[in-house]
Amino acid sequence: MASLLDPSARGRVILVGAGPGDPGLLTVRAVEALKQADVLVHDGLVDPRVLDLAPQAHRISVAKRRSKHTVPQDGINALIIAHVKTGAIVVRLKGGDPFIFGRGGEEVEAVRAAGLPVEVIPGVSAALGGAAEAMLPLTHRDWSSAVSFVAGQCKGLSEQDWSGLAGKGRTLVIYMGVATCPDIAEKLMNDGVAPDMPVAILERATLEGSRAMRTLLADLGPLVEREKVQSPAIIVVGEVVAISDAEDKLAGWAKKAELMHGFDL
Amino acid sequence: MASLLDPSARGRVILVGAGPGDPGLLTVRAVEALKQADVLVHDGLVDPRVLDLAPQAHRISVAKRRSKHTVPQDGINALIIAHVKTGAIVVRLKGGDPFIFGRGGEEVEAVRAAGLPVEVIPGVSAALGGAAEAMLPLTHRDWSSAVSFVAGQCKGLSEQDWSGLAGKGRTLVIYMGVATCPDIAEKLMNDGVAPDMPVAILERATLEGSRAMRTLLADLGPLVEREKVQSPAIIVVGEVVAISDAEDKLAGWAKKAELMHGFDL
Repeated sequence: MASLLDPSARGRVILVGAGPGDPGLLTVRAVEALKQADVLVHDGLVDPRVLDLAPQAHRISVAKRRSKHTVPQDGINALIIAHVKTGAIVVRLKGGDPFIFGRGGEEVEAVRAAGLPVEVIPGVSAALGGAAEAMLPLTHRDWSSAVSFVAGQCKGLSEQDWSGLAGKGRTLVIYMGVATCPDIAEKLMNDGVAPDMPVAILERATLEGSRAMRTLLADLGPLVEREKVQSPAIIVVGEVVAISDAEDKLAGWAKKAELMHGFDL
Repeated sequence: MASLLDPSARGRVILVGAGPGDPGLLTVRAVEALKQADVLVHDGLVDPRVLDLAPQAHRISVAKRRSKHTVPQDGINALIIAHVKTGAIVVRLKGGDPFIFGRGGEEVEAVRAAGLPVEVIPGVSAALGGAAEAMLPLTHRDWSSAVSFVAGQCKGLSEQDWSGLAGKGRTLVIYMGVATCPDIAEKLMNDGVAPDMPVAILERATLEGSRAMRTLLADLGPLVEREKVQSPAIIVVGEVVAISDAEDKLAGWAKKAELMHGFDL
């Protein structure tokens, strides 16, 4: 893989996937990039222990907080570019992988439009970290031949076409869907997904205090309320949930799932 | 994340995602697991430089080769279990991530059915590594709100339902699809995906001699033939391909894509 990680090269951006949270799930190259950073621009999903791997770096948080002032994407781009122009190595650290719901594409375009060099180091996307922790195979020869990732909060969510993404034989993963999942569950059921399709919520995956819970699609909205689920959380919709370690949160869940799937849980 | 990586614990399995190929894209925990391995069971997609991180381990290849004898999944499970029962730390190293087309779910089930402990360390799935290298954002606020991963070689491929997985506003990623992509392209077009939808082939992503090429959906099969594309390769179908660094392999591609998308390439 072509690398710009030449210590003599200055004034450049490295977009780094910080993985799902656990610092042990950073890649070797991500750790190397952090060690070289002069400036670290990070969002709110990055664990403090990850930031501590770049003690020398000037840290700039562009965390999105609903109630507080948020730096808009144009502002983040301008901030990165301004620092690179001073000759700094700017590490832009993004939760998960930069190219899966990370707006990495927009930042690459902006940096290149300014005529500056940029490199991307991929990361373990949050769903993969959560799935490993919950022993939830996202694909399985017997149960799922396709896995789709969608964001529960995005531009044009109301126009999102859910048809074909969930149902028998495939797995749907929803990022950032805690607030919108009651509506999403409704839409999926209207599109023909069975109300008793297994669903898992992976809250704070790979972080301290993580919880993996499961229920059925019709109970997804009520579960989020009952269990006071907080972001960050990943929602997985599909039969593979039945064979995971996620904790049953619905009376009769196991019985229902067993009848549906014909195997022991 | 709960870990079994206690050096005093013996007789256990660690399923490790080896990432897309480049050893620098292993996670920190994967490197730690490799250092502890007594036995390393690996498939053919794992780079030799990754195997060299466990020089002390007894290596067992269960590579799938079309023309040679292949160890069937039951045999792999039995092999792992037999070694764990001797008290060994068995690292089962799988290209990419164990839970995305890695049969990790089946191996977890088998090891647990034998009453033995197993842990999963997630990895950077091949598509994420290839996308970072080719500067190909798999999602983008303007171009794609969903990304789906499917395997081009799997049980029941002929019954794979492609509807809804590709088309305007979403990205389809096909793993292990070099041999079957002419048929898949045909099916996608029959399902209504435009023949001039951009397609990228990421051959040997993140490895020495990698190539990122692009064309249009109708030309996918011919391109694989013309360029003699070899496995491993990832195929990406979607508008996001237009903004990537993949090399144009079709005369008039840029013009066509520009007309379609209304932006400069």
